[in-house]
Order: sequence, then C-alpha cells, then structure tokens
Amino acid sequence: MLNWLIVDKIIRNALEEDMPYGDITTDMLIDPTEISRAVFITKEDGVVAGLDVAGRVFEILDNKVIFTKIVQDGQKVEKGSILAEVTGNTAALLKGERTALNLLQRLSGIATRTNEFIRRVEGLDVKIVDTRKTTPGLRILEKYAVRMGGGVNHRYSLSDGVLIKDNHIAAAGSIKNAVEVARKKLPHTMKIEVETETIEQVKEALEAGADIIMLDNMSIEMMKEAVKLINKKALVEASGNVTLENVREVAQTGVDIISSGSLTHSVKALDISMRIR
Amino acid sequence: MLNWLIVDKIIRNALEEDMPYGDITTDMLIDPTEISRAVFITKEDGVVAGLDVAGRVFEILDNKVIFTKIVQDGQKVEKGSILAEVTGNTAALLKGERTALNLLQRLSGIATRTNEFIRRVEGLDVKIVDTRKTTPGLRILEKYAVRMGGGVNHRYSLSDGVLIKDNHIAAAGSIKNAVEVARKKLPHTMKIEVETETIEQVKEALEAGADIIMLDNMSIEMMKEAVKLINKKALVEASGNVTLENVREVAQTGVDIISSGSLTHSVKALDISMRIR
Amino acid sequence: MLNWLIVDKIIRNALEEDMPYGDITTDMLIDPTEISRAVFITKEDGVVAGLDVAGRVFEILDNKVIFTKIVQDGQKVEKGSILAEVTGNTAALLKGERTALNLLQRLSGIATRTNEFIRRVEGLDVKIVDTRKTTPGLRILEKYAVRMGGGVNHRYSLSDGVLIKDNHIAAAGSIKNAVEVARKKLPHTMKIEVETETIEQVKEALEAGADIIMLDNMSIEMMKEAVKLINKKALVEASGNVTLENVREVAQTGVDIISSGSLTHSVKALDISMRIR
Amino acid sequence: MLNWLIVDKIIRNALEEDMPYGDITTDMLIDPTEISRAVFITKEDGVVAGLDVAGRVFEILDNKVIFTKIVQDGQKVEKGSILAEVTGNTAALLKGERTALNLLQRLSGIATRTNEFIRRVEGLDVKIVDTRKTTPGLRILEKYAVRMGGGVNHRYSLSDGVLIKDNHIAAAGSIKNAVEVARKKLPHTMKIEVETETIEQVKEALEAGADIIMLDNMSIEMMKEAVKLINKKALVEASGNVTLENVREVAQTGVDIISSGSLTHSVKALDISMRIR
Amino acid sequence: MLNWLIVDKIIRNALEEDMPYGDITTDMLIDPTEISRAVFITKEDGVVAGLDVAGRVFEILDNKVIFTKIVQDGQKVEKGSILAEVTGNTAALLKGERTALNLLQRLSGIATRTNEFIRRVEGLDVKIVDTRKTTPGLRILEKYAVRMGGGVNHRYSLSDGVLIKDNHIAAAGSIKNAVEVARKKLPHTMKIEVETETIEQVKEALEAGADIIMLDNMSIEMMKEAVKLINKKALVEASGNVTLENVREVAQTGVDIISSGSLTHSVKALDISMRIR
Amino acid sequence: MLNWLIVDKIIRNALEEDMPYGDITTDMLIDPTEISRAVFITKEDGVVAGLDVAGRVFEILDNKVIFTKIVQDGQKVEKGSILAEVTGNTAALLKGERTALNLLQRLSGIATRTNEFIRRVEGLDVKIVDTRKTTPGLRILEKYAVRMGGGVNHRYSLSDGVLIKDNHIAAAGSIKNAVEVARKKLPHTMKIEVETETIEQVKEALEAGADIIMLDNMSIEMMKEAVKLINKKALVEASGNVTLENVREVAQTGVDIISSGSLTHSVKALDISMRIR
Repeated sequence: MLNWLIVDKIIRNALEEDMPYGDITTDMLIDPTEISRAVFITKEDGVVAGLDVAGRVFEILDNKVIFTKIVQDGQKVEKGSILAEVTGNTAALLKGERTALNLLQRLSGIATRTNEFIRRVEGLDVKIVDTRKTTPGLRILEKYAVRMGGGVNHRYSLSDGVLIKDNHIAAAGSIKNAVEVARKKLPHTMKIEVETETIEQVKEALEAGADIIMLDNMSIEMMKEAVKLINKKALVEASGNVTLENVREVAQTGVDIISSGSLTHSVKALDISMRIR
Repeated sequence: MLNWLIVDKIIRNALEEDMPYGDITTDMLIDPTEISRAVFITKEDGVVAGLDVAGRVFEILDNKVIFTKIVQDGQKVEKGSILAEVTGNTAALLKGERTALNLLQRLSGIATRTNEFIRRVEGLDVKIVDTRKTTPGLRILEKYAVRMGGGVNHRYSLSDGVLIKDNHIAAAGSIKNAVEVARKKLPHTMKIEVETETIEQVKEALEAGADIIMLDNMSIEMMKEAVKLINKKALVEASGNVTLENVREVAQTGVDIISSGSLTHSVKALDISMRIR
Repeated sequence: MLNWLIVDKIIRNALEEDMPYGDITTDMLIDPTEISRAVFITKEDGVVAGLDVAGRVFEILDNKVIFTKIVQDGQKVEKGSILAEVTGNTAALLKGERTALNLLQRLSGIATRTNEFIRRVEGLDVKIVDTRKTTPGLRILEKYAVRMGGGVNHRYSLSDGVLIKDNHIAAAGSIKNAVEVARKKLPHTMKIEVETETIEQVKEALEAGADIIMLDNMSIEMMKEAVKLINKKALVEASGNVTLENVREVAQTGVDIISSGSLTHSVKALDISMRIR
Repeated sequence: MLNWLIVDKIIRNALEEDMPYGDITTDMLIDPTEISRAVFITKEDGVVAGLDVAGRVFEILDNKVIFTKIVQDGQKVEKGSILAEVTGNTAALLKGERTALNLLQRLSGIATRTNEFIRRVEGLDVKIVDTRKTTPGLRILEKYAVRMGGGVNHRYSLSDGVLIKDNHIAAAGSIKNAVEVARKKLPHTMKIEVETETIEQVKEALEAGADIIMLDNMSIEMMKEAVKLINKKALVEASGNVTLENVREVAQTGVDIISSGSLTHSVKALDISMRIR
Repeated sequence: MLNWLIVDKIIRNALEEDMPYGDITTDMLIDPTEISRAVFITKEDGVVAGLDVAGRVFEILDNKVIFTKIVQDGQKVEKGSILAEVTGNTAALLKGERTALNLLQRLSGIATRTNEFIRRVEGLDVKIVDTRKTTPGLRILEKYAVRMGGGVNHRYSLSDGVLIKDNHIAAAGSIKNAVEVARKKLPHTMKIEVETETIEQVKEALEAGADIIMLDNMSIEMMKEAVKLINKKALVEASGNVTLENVREVAQTGVDIISSGSLTHSVKALDISMRIR
Repeated sequence: MLNWLIVDKIIRNALEEDMPYGDITTDMLIDPTEISRAVFITKEDGVVAGLDVAGRVFEILDNKVIFTKIVQDGQKVEKGSILAEVTGNTAALLKGERTALNLLQRLSGIATRTNEFIRRVEGLDVKIVDTRKTTPGLRILEKYAVRMGGGVNHRYSLSDGVLIKDNHIAAAGSIKNAVEVARKKLPHTMKIEVETETIEQVKEALEAGADIIMLDNMSIEMMKEAVKLINKKALVEASGNVTLENVREVAQTGVDIISSGSLTHSVKALDISMRIR
C-alpha cells in the first residue's frame, strides 16, 4: 500500500540526518558482531500505523535484521501491548531506534487521532478526510496513516485535484466561468470542486455544475441549508474549524465529507518505546 | 543562522511533493502575468519562527517575488498581527501558500511551545533543551525553532555528541570502562554524557569522570539527591516526562539542563493564515 | 504552465548526459568571451511546443543569454519561419544547441501530431487525450506538448486516476464489487473509470455506477451500441488502435473522449534547426 | 553491456514519475499476496532490445519477481512470438507493466529501425552509426539499442569526441589552425573529425590531417568526388538526410560511415504487449 | 565503524565518474560470464585502511563477488603481503579495479602517515589528531583512515565543534565575551576551544574558561610557557607546522593534543596493486 | 573550460560535508550583516589552478560576494604573491574558507607538480599526460589542473578510451583478435591503445594495427628498441614508474607521450592561505 521507492528515500534521508558520520557512542563501545532482540511496546492506547516503515529502518541499516510484526497497521492497541519485535545486530538496533520511533510514533499518532474522529461519527454516512496540511516531505506517510485510522484521503497535491477558490473565481470572473474552463481543460478523470463561503456561492456552484461543493467555515445552520439546497446534485464537503467536539454535529448536517487539517498538522505522537533486551 | 544549502533542499522537496506536475487549478485559471499582494496574519498569540523560510518558498517559485518581514523570528506576536507580506506573481503566491504555511506554522508552534517552558522557569539558572525526537527530514529547522523560542539545542545527531546508555554500559562492562574508552577515542572537543537511572549509577558516573550526567526519569526527590551528590563536578541534565506543569519543580532541583522531547514531537501548529488581497 | 522545479532537473540531467566533462571541441577552439546570435528555424509546417524549455537550456548554461520567442507554444508555424532567437556566449550556444533541439523538436512533434488528430475531428464534440505511453522521464513535458497541440491530458500517473482493468475486476469478483470498493476508499475528487471489452461489460460498468467507461479496442459498431446504451449516464472513452485515418469515424460514434498512445510513443520530431550567425 | 548504476536510476525515476504515491487502483483492489504470471508478446516483426531493462523494472518493484528471457536482445522476432515471461507479485506486475513496456517498445523500435538500415547496405563495407539526437535522459539506452540493431555508436557526448564545425573553424581562422590546436591539446586517444560542406573544405581538412572527414548534406556526386579525393587517407562519414530509401546509394559512394539521427529521434515504438494470465 | 549509507554514495559516485556509460574495452572483449580471482598486494610497508571500502566497490558492481580480507584495517603490512582477495565476474573486477585502488591506496596512505606520527611520539601522553584539511567529499573516509593509523579525530565539521578564532574574537570584543556567548548558546555537549597566538591570549582564554586552548604556530619555547601557565586547567592543542621531524619535540612541551593538516592534505598513496589471475 | 553544472555539485557537496547544520562558532559570534575583505596568498612558488572554483565556493554561500582574481589559472606564482581577493559577508567568508582552500591548494598542487614534469622535458617533443589515478569524485577538477600545469589529459574514464590490457588480450585470444574486434565495434572517433610489456607484444600490437602502443614499465633500453621498431607507425606512450628524476631520460627514448599517476595520486597541496582583513 506504500510506494517503497519513495519511503526508502525518506528513511535514508532521516538516517543520514541522524548520523551524518556514524553513531560515535555505539561505534566506540558496542562490539560490531553483537546480536540483540528488542520489542516495541505502546505506552498508550491507540491505533498503530507505520510498523513496516519502522522495520524498514533497520533493514536499511543491516539487511540481516529480522523485524516481526505482532499487530498490523490499522489495528487498535492497548497500553502495554507489544507491537513488534526486532532481532539483529545490536549496533544497527541502537542506530535505527530513534528514527524508527520518530516515524512510528508520529504515524500512529495520526492514525489514532483520525480514528477518534471516525468513532465520533459512527453510524453516520460521512467520510473523514485529510488535507494538504501535512509535514513537508512526509505526506505519503501521513496520508497512509490517515487511511490506517479509518479516514479517506483528499487530493494528494495541487497536481491531482481541482479546488476552485476565491482567487480563481475572481480571475475567471465568476464561478460559472471558472467551472466551464476547468471542464474543458481538465483531465476527464477529475472532479471539479468549488469552495464556497455563502449560500449565494453554493447556488452558483451548483448551477455551474460543480461536482463537489466545499462549505468553508460555515455555521451548522448554514451547512444544513446548503445541504438541502444541493440536494445530492453534488458531493458536499464541510471544511474549517472541525474539532472532535463538533464533528458529529457537522456530520449530522448531512454533508458527505468532512475534512480536517488537524488530523495531520498538530498531532500528538503515540507514546511507543523500544526496549532492547 | 540557517544553512540555506540544506533548507533550500527541504523546500524544493516540499514543493515537488505538493505539485509534482503543477497546480492544475491555478494553471488553468490564473493569468500568469497577474501580480498580487498577500499578508501573513497570526490568529493566535505565540512566538514566530520560520519567516525567512516561508519567504524562501516564494523566491524559489519566482525570484521576482518580494517578501518583507514585519516581525522577526523569535519575536512574540499577538493574535491578529501581521507577520510579513509578500508581493509578486499571483500564481506563485497560490502555489507556495500551503508549503510556506506548513513550515511557518510548525516552526512557530515549536518556538511557542519552547517559550512556554522558558517562561515557566523564569528566574532559574537552567537551560531548556531539545532532543532527537524531531520530524524526520526537518531537524535543522526544528532545532532552529527551539532556539527562536529561547531554548538551547542538545546534540544534533548521533554523530556529534556522546550519550552512554545502558546498552553501551553493559557492553563496556561498567560506566567506568565506558567513559575511559570514550575519553581515549573521542574527539577532544566533545563532552561525555552518561545516562543514569539510580543514585548508584550517578555515583559511578561521577567517579568515572563523566562531563555530563543525565538523570533519566527520576523523581523530584531523587533528582535533588543527585544534584547534591554531583555538587557541580559535572553538568546535570534532567530528562523524561517533563511537562509544562512540572518543569519548574524539576528546575528547582538544581539541575543545569532540562531536555524535553515534547518541544518537537507533539507540537500544535501556530494558527497563521495567508490572505491574498 | 510548466513546473520549472521539475523541468530544470530534466534539462540539467540532459546537459550532464551530453557533456559529462565539457564540450572538448568548443572548449579548445572557441574564445570564452565571444558572443553570437542564433535563430531557431522550422524546416517543416507544424505546431510548436517547448520554446521556453529550449530557452531555459541556454539560461542554465549561462544566465546572461537572452532568449526571445518570436512565436508562442501552441502556435501553428510554417516551413521557414523563425521561432525564436538567442543571443549570448558562443560557447554556451554551441553547448546547449543539441539539448535544446532534442527537446524542442520532440515536443513540437507531439504538438503537431496531436493537432492533426484535432483537425480530423473538427466540429465534433470530442476530446483527444493522451495516455501513459510517454517517454520515461519526460512525461511532464510530453503531456504539456499534447495540450499545446490542442489535446487534453488523461490521468498523469497511476497515482492520480483510477482505471479498473480486467485483473482488478477478477480480483474484486465483479465490476460491481470493484467499483463499490473504489467508491468507498477513493479520494472523493477522483472519478472511477472502468475498462470494458464487451457490451456485457459496458452494462455491468453502467449498473455499477462507473463515472467513465472505456471502450477498449471495440469495433465502430460496438462503440455505437455502447454509446447508445450508456446514454450520457457516464463519460465514454474510446481507446485502442485509433489512427489519423479512423479517428473521425470513431468520434462520430458519439464517444466523449478518444485516447491515443500514438500521440506520444511514436512521434516524428519536427525538423527545426538552430543557425548561429 | 549496460552500466546498471545508470540504468537503475533511469528506471527508478520512471517508476516515480508513473506512481509518485502508488497505484491507487491496484492498491485498493489487488490482494498484496497474489502471484501472477505474464508474458511479453510482440505484435509486429522486429529486432528486440531492452529485455533486461524491462525485467529490471519488476525486480526493482519486488526483488522476488522472476523474469525469464525467451529471446535475447539483438535477435529478430516475428509477430506473435513470446519474448519473455515474468512471474511474481501481481501488484508489482501491474505497477511495472507500463514502464517496462515504454522502455522495451522504444528500444526495440530503435533496434528494429537500425536493423532496417543495416539490411539495406548488406554486402557493403560501411558502418551505420547513430548521432546525439537521442531522447534527453535515455542516451545510454538508445545507443545500446542501436548496437543491438547492428549499428555502431558515434561519440557518446560532447565530452568524448571532437567534431570541428563551421563555428569552430571560423574561431580558429581555418581548418588547418583548428586541427593543429586540437592535435596539441586533445587526449591522444581521440581522433579529430572535421565537418565539411564543400569539396574545397574536404581538401583543407585532408591537408590539415583530420582523422575523419564528415561530408555534411552533400549530393551523391559530391560524396563520390570527396571519397576519391580523400582516398583512404582519412575515414569518411556521410551525414545528413540519409533515409532508408537512399542509404544504399550513399553507401555505394564508398564512405566508411553513415550516420543518421533518424535512428533515434523519430522512432516508431515496436508494438509489444504484456499479458497477465 | 563506517556509515555505509554515506560510503555507498561515495563509491557509486566514483564508479559513475569512472564509467559514465560503461567500460568500452571490457564490454567489447570480456565474456560477461567469465569468473576470475584477483589479489591485492602491497608494494610498500605501511598501515592498511579501506579494505572494506575496496570490497564494497566490487559488491556494488556485482553482488555475487566474494571479497575476503587477509589482513584487517589498522594492521601494519609489509611489502609483498597479500591484503585481500576477490573472486567473481571478470568484467566486474576489471571495472572496479581502479576505483577500489584509488580509495584503498589513499586511505592506506593516510593511515600510514598518521602512524608515522604516532610512532614518533611513542611513550608520550599525547594524541595525534587530524584537521578539516581533507579532500572535499571524502572526509568520512579520511577521518576513518586517521583512526586506523592510530590517530584521533578533531571536530568533523564546522557544525560539531567550536573553534573561536581571531575574527570571532574581534567581533565579540574579547576572548572573554566570545566564550561567554558561546557558553550560553552552545549545546552543553560541546567544549569551547579558543585559538591563541600569544601568551597574552593564552591567559585571556584561560581566564575566560575555555575548555581547550589551541596554541597556533607557536615556538617550542612559547608552547612550554603556555603549558605551564595553563597547568591542566584546560586541554592544550598544538597546531601549525608540525612535521615528522619536530613532532616529538612539540609533544615534549606537554601539550595534550597535536593536530596536523598534513595527515590528510598531502598524502602519498600507499603503492598497492591488484593482480588478476 | 570547466563544466560548472558538475563543479557546482562538487562544491555544494563539500560545503554540506563541512557544515551539515551550519558553522556554530560563526553563527553565534559574527554579526550576519558584517562585511570583510580577504586575500589569498601563496606561501610557496608554484602554478596556480582552481581560482574560479575557490571563488564559486563563496558565491554559492552568498551571491553578493565579489571574488576578483589577481592572477590566472595556469600562471606561475611566487611565494608571497596575492592570487585573489574576495569581499563580502564575513560569515560567508569564514564558512567558505576551508572548502575554498582545500580545493585551491590541491588543484594548485597538481598544476605545480605537472609543471615540474613539463620543465624537465623542455625542448623535447613529448606530452606529459595524466591517468585515472585521481581522487574519487574530483576527476573533472584534477584533470583540469593537469592542463593548467601544461599537461594533456589521457582518457577521462573507462567509457571514452580503449586500453587493451593482458586480461582483454587473453580473453580475445591474441592482440590481433582483440584489435580486430575493437575496430569493428568501436565508435570510429576513438583510437585503439594496446598495453605491452615485451618487445614481442610491441610487434604484435604494431602488426595488429594498434593506433597507440603503451610501453608499460619497460627499461630505457627496451623503450628505445620499441620506439625504433614502431617507427612512427603508431603513437607510443611510456607508462609506469616515471619520476621527476627519470622523466627526461624516458622522453629521450623518443616516445610521444609519458603518463604518470603521480601527477594526481600523491600530490603535495600548494601552501596557500586566506587572510581576512
């Protein structure tokens, strides 16, 4: 599910950043032939993501290391459970530990947070989706973590999805013109999404034939009105200031999709430790 | 203060990630000769970091863009204040907006959080330092943000600082042996730090001549005892489970340095927006 | 319209390939301060694409070179017309000539060929689109050239468009199942396209709610039947063995989109020369 | 015969271009443990080139894939013959298919075209050579394909062969001066080639001691005269407007080498398909 | 002891430099399935360094090559001894030979030279350390070779050690100010070194609390005076114009560390040859 | 004369190596707006090479730095002369100093050494050429320095020159066969060189029609005999154990070319310093 050509580059870059010319403590003190075993243990409840990524860190350092997952990405785990174990060259384990944890904790943090949103909207027909507010350089991993938490991805980048905002509308003259131009020039595989802030704009977007209408920072009342107006003729995405507290209320307006930057931009790392035995 | 050879690579990588083949909406709808002006406004109080980095995003996209800072990195800013303005090619502004904000918000979040720790220990002679729990690929920027918040950096990587942990001690036979080997082989420019979990280990480290003794996850009482025992013969670093709530109490034990992974691993992005006029 | 961060990499790579350690003839014989002027002249009729790319080749070699376009990308040009002129360091002109021409001729060849398809379907409401049968490493440029010739792009890569083929259908059990899974997991910004080879499959895809139905290698008769059956409930794409000879007949079946790998995989370079005065 | 350090980079770049963040269709629908077998079948007669390159695409995606060649590069194949088979992870086969074919078809197209030239000059003592009119980024592969078709390579780049053209001659004052300078400064391992357009220039080049004299765009008559004049005292290369139709006539003038940009710049991809069973 | 992520990049770069498009002689003449055995023999006495690096060159070219060390890095070897043998694909051996030797000879030259310094100071309590006067791009390897020769490394780069020189002192106003600022802002893991040229400056540095005092280009007499003055309150490093001839005299002044750029900047490669049988 | 696309990469790599996360001393202590002037002074007689390269180091760090050459590459300089001056941001000067000197001193060392060989053979018609015994990663610069010293380059890499050695001869069966195969398959722009160790082999190479015959490690007597035998029918290259002491004697045997690895593999850096005023 991950493009390892890209993920390997991220890991190599992280390892170079963390030891541009080696691990001086380990290189001085650890017998290079010593073998150890370590376990990854979660110190909090959560949803795990990034185990294969963590394992890959060690394989890149020493291809004889054996990394064995005890649970799978996307699985809920309880405080104290063992997530994986790794056996191999002690020096490689020590050198890879921090990089593996930095990745695993962040991705599990994202999956856990996404899953909290998912649980809040249980029973409602709505998708929780991410945004482009991801960590520069780690988007492929963070979007993966959102999926592992039960979320769905929004467009990956500016290149693979259309979102017509106020500046685009102003430049085109009207929502109608903007959608028309897009319909003519766009790959036919893409839908056209228009960002709206008022009911007036929702109407225009609907008339222009937008495939998706984003309700940006609207009140619950306004969202309800918009959903009614749109009446299934376009997909409806709610965006802006969605929190764990208000997400169910937002979902109950009848929108199809709720996007939240907070899934990725302000995440608490899941507390996971690696213990070498 | 930043190594731009490295930072430029981070920015280029982020921009490629966010538009591997262009911004399709903007490329279709915005006149490529149009010029706009935008401002960066903070929607929360905080300490700003990363303005030059944000500005560089736009310069890389179009070297005719003018980015002007209104405040400086490290400065405290209040909700509603304008941080910077940028004037130039509209398409470049739209393409760079998200990448610039993703960087600026994260770095300002780190500076802000670091500064909260600093304020809690005001008047005490202690340094707040970061750890290696940074975002893979962004360490150079996140360590910079810690400095902007008033913190000091710990070692940058496994290559430029020694930290002797339990596995190293076990391999060397004793703290004494480990420190001795390190003293012989290490660059003379580096100090030797030993991680301890008990008063017994603190004593051993002290006798071994460690330059820095880390008190890992010790209780306040134990820390006090350790500080007394060490009695200025080595630097003392407190580490583990330091929070905004307990940081002052930790500082009052008399340690010289307090390190906290939470400065970087679980940061809330500072809410900053870019408004194009 | 082009992502120069990517295009610059392509050009630098090409220049390194063409002179890993310099242009030995020019370095020996040309005075490094000499200035010349050169013109790009087309020796055939066609549609030009890649002028900015050609100009960028020289700028990368020497940032004082002045490249001036006489015509614009996308414009029809007649044999003998001057497309652009370039003035600057003679050595830079000689070193960049072949790389600039290799790019400009290929892109203009693609634009020209695409435009031939466009002219054949004049007056019909159909889009001519490209495929993923592009030159490895040059897709961003070749898709641009298709647009310059009047075509529209299909999905850029495997990452930004869904195309459900026989293997996917087999794995999912049925077209219905495959579309259902996709609808649930996909970014809501993407349409779902299903490849069909029989009328039976067209029916299934239609019932499954596919957004786009590809008619793969069907006869003219079968395409007509499929179009009638689909009856505007999905977009229809004709694909496979489309030639300049039969493209109008294919278009007349009423399909919305015609894709052809031949726009990019077997193109005759437009004959353009650079003459140094 | 191929430098895999370079070829691997080309393949990795192509795969990243074709799936910057994965194959969304396959990732959603194909069981990641499923194994399939596929065959490569040519749908046209031709000379094959690039089988190892195609195989390498799959190995890079999954190192457990087994790729088995049925024919060898350089071999003539008939429509319908199986060229190779590949067995392994279905997802890897689907993800690599297009990139493998894009490379294999292009290289086989070049080998096939080169071989057509070779067959036209059968029995004559002349070499068919390529030029620098190759696809930017793929020269190493395209020059390999020319060899597989029976051709010989011209210089690889501006760095490894001397070709003195009109601008160089003008700068040096005369052909004589240019050759003299080159003889003094050049690595002794390189021959000196001079481009000529008139019999007068041929004479000058001959007197100057050029090792190779290129007859650029000369008529058949003029070439005959030049060959007679040169009389084996230098190698003679015919260049410019050589086609399948006139290549034999050109060869019969007695030139030693015939170079043609059309071997690489305007090639029809050989029609090869990959069928997954 | 070596960070192979970095070393592999150095080797790949070197191999690309030495055969951007293959080894034309070997590719034409050597049967690609032929296997050979070769030995590395030293033609001079010395200390060897870089055997694993040399072995890695061949593994990168062909992962089936077997490289076996007969001696270990850091070991003294006599003229005529076999250092290692390598068995595998003949073409890979021929292609890797020069790159492997270029690295092995240089690193062994550095280890040998370092060891000559070490032998000159035998019995004295002093460390011989390197400088930043290393070959651009090879520092990680050259610093390793110094260690293999019995030396110790100075700081690796400008990023991981402080050296306060005259310009820094001038900017700060005084040595005292400079050290104070550094003490406040520096990672606590780093020592502060001050470069001095006069006894006056030595005194100032000592009073300022410098951890290390560098005596730059001082006479033997002045060094003695400085050592006496410092009286173990700081580490003392002698630097500048240290030669094999005077190193013992310098050591006898009582300094703790002697650094010499000549360990790396002007090294005679150890004469080692590779003989293919 | 230098391919700056490549040289810039070398410099950037060197600067990253020397300050992966900045120059901590300078960043703490130097006012980032301060401007200084520095001069490069040679402390030995020699031939300078690499001034533009040194200047480029500073430009890459700060594009407002002004670097002015007082002498030119290839010029003889006397102890104490000023080679260049540089004015600009003090921090940039301090950060670039070591990298600029490391490059400039090495290249000037090579030029100086080459020039010593040249002076020894003054008046004789012989070329002094380099080998592939260059520093991995710096070949393009080191070959340039050889030219600046008055030498000529041998082949740049395994890709652009043929050298048939004993293993190739053994594989081909005989020198005759080897040359024949090469003549058929090689680009016509390349000469064929054969390495010989005996007069018998010289005869074979001559009969086989080798363009260049290398006399490897032959005695002066044997070389004379070989030169006589070859009698201008091929170029003659002397190689192996050529020293400053014996180079004139070797030249007097009548060989055309003398190659020496010692021009690059064991060079003493020219002592140059940079003084900031």
